[in-house]
Amino acid sequence: MNFEIQILGCGAATPTAKHMPTSQLVNVHDKLFLVDCGEGTQIQIRRYKVKFQKIDHIFISHLHGDHFFGLVGLLSSMHLLGRTKQLTIFAPKQLEAILEVQFEASQTRLSFPIKFVDSIVKEKTLLLEDKTLEIYAFPLKHRVPCSGFLFQEKPRKAKIRKAFIKLYDLGIEEMVNIKNRTNVERPNGEVISWKECTYDDPPVKSYAFCSDTAPSPKVEDVIKDVTLLYHEATFHSSLKDRAVTTFHSTSLDAGSIAAKCNVGHLVIGHFSSRYMDKSILLEEALTQFERTSCANEGLKFVLKENPGEIEIQDMNRSKSNCE
Amino acid sequence: MNFEIQILGCGAATPTAKHMPTSQLVNVHDKLFLVDCGEGTQIQIRRYKVKFQKIDHIFISHLHGDHFFGLVGLLSSMHLLGRTKQLTIFAPKQLEAILEVQFEASQTRLSFPIKFVDSIVKEKTLLLEDKTLEIYAFPLKHRVPCSGFLFQEKPRKAKIRKAFIKLYDLGIEEMVNIKNRTNVERPNGEVISWKECTYDDPPVKSYAFCSDTAPSPKVEDVIKDVTLLYHEATFHSSLKDRAVTTFHSTSLDAGSIAAKCNVGHLVIGHFSSRYMDKSILLEEALTQFERTSCANEGLKFVLKENPGEIEIQDMNRSKSNCE
Repeated sequence: MNFEIQILGCGAATPTAKHMPTSQLVNVHDKLFLVDCGEGTQIQIRRYKVKFQKIDHIFISHLHGDHFFGLVGLLSSMHLLGRTKQLTIFAPKQLEAILEVQFEASQTRLSFPIKFVDSIVKEKTLLLEDKTLEIYAFPLKHRVPCSGFLFQEKPRKAKIRKAFIKLYDLGIEEMVNIKNRTNVERPNGEVISWKECTYDDPPVKSYAFCSDTAPSPKVEDVIKDVTLLYHEATFHSSLKDRAVTTFHSTSLDAGSIAAKCNVGHLVIGHFSSRYMDKSILLEEALTQFERTSCANEGLKFVLKENPGEIEIQDMNRSKSNCE
Repeated sequence: MNFEIQILGCGAATPTAKHMPTSQLVNVHDKLFLVDCGEGTQIQIRRYKVKFQKIDHIFISHLHGDHFFGLVGLLSSMHLLGRTKQLTIFAPKQLEAILEVQFEASQTRLSFPIKFVDSIVKEKTLLLEDKTLEIYAFPLKHRVPCSGFLFQEKPRKAKIRKAFIKLYDLGIEEMVNIKNRTNVERPNGEVISWKECTYDDPPVKSYAFCSDTAPSPKVEDVIKDVTLLYHEATFHSSLKDRAVTTFHSTSLDAGSIAAKCNVGHLVIGHFSSRYMDKSILLEEALTQFERTSCANEGLKFVLKENPGEIEIQDMNRSKSNCE
């Protein structure tokens, strides 16, 4: 079952010709989630030929412009393209009024309903779940209220080894129990361990998105052991003071957090526009944590079934970027 | 003295991979004016290596998103880049509240003052002038209040032919009068005509911007004889009904308006996303008016001293578009 994160933008607040502001598409089990929506996100979505209307849930981490200024344009386009189905937006409360005043000015009455859900939470909180996936918000430490998001697969049913069906002559009801990870107790007192009869679980895959945050133990508790961590690394540690004042992280911070939290793979992003060459940020993070990549527009991080294996695809290669 | 219009975006409301929404840089006598500011305008400004802080005046024609959604991001960037000097924004009144609610949410207090001036007028109205230039707003005919903008050089001082200085033995005060287009009356009753003593005037250059509008005689009165007319041509005339319902113009309309108004050159833009190939729009406008060009991102229209001469430069050629 697929689990992919595509970077649409990974720059910080001031725009550059190299990077778009923060936005990502998270595709889990063929459901498409948009995470943050900086200016130009809809242009990026078009560029990578993703269908707008497949997005039913949008997550906005906080109300600094580089994380949401593209939302009103995206919603307008969904409207112009005739969307009718509901869209759910998880975002700080004030966003509703911000959108309203703009649609009022243009005399636009959206063709589809929006359900707003407050994304600002005091502790890790379940926002959304379906049969196979749970999505949580958790508090980040920034200058304004700000949330990270955690996408986590639910454990699947256990898979029975055929040999054990024969060995214990398992009945249908007994097999259901074992798949549900429950031991079987027979009338004669015999106990059959579900663990013994099943394959080792492929670990559940998970992704944590930490948009803008100072390092914080509370955040570390939540992102422990995730398969993939996106963590901001706005500055190099030579600008640690600036990072502290602005409630951001350095590339050194991002690397050590990834190491401390035992994550599978780290992607750094939200690069300050002062870094024309991001290799000094990557190199610094790598001193702390080996499995680190730099975000870049068009990169897709695919979480594989093989525990901890990440495939990185460059979506720019499959199309001309100079349209 | 320079007079140039650079297209930053010329698409209509729904975004495409080919066109950005409406925005233009008008550079007259080395003053830089931004006209409309669709989403992504700041990215375009960066792309063409124009300095943000050289813009002191912004004109917003109306509050449909494709004409102003990029403004809040541009202002945020000006702030982050440390601007302190005043910015004047000519726009519909509601814009101030729209910006305010967004800066409030991000707890941003801009580092520079903004002066808001209502751009919605009942008739052609002077918005701004300096020694050499006048800028007017005039009402367009659209679904929401909407203004066009007219940039017009003031007549320069007349240029005296040297031979006449000698012929009439002109004194300094007499020459000042002649430059100011006043006849000289000498004590002996002799009248020297300023026209006789001066070169024929190079015609004053002018530019009219008609963002979104249905054809209207009131608009035609204002744009008569302009050197360069930008006129929207959202649809081909085969969709005339749709143009009428949405208060837009067809490429046939744009061409005939240019012909009727005797303009020097016509640039059509605001192309509906349905036209992958704009040549059918250009061809239709050309049936009505020969001196027509299609807008395109990065094209610069330079008004030359030679009456009616327009030079078209492609700013994409001077740089890589695939950064």
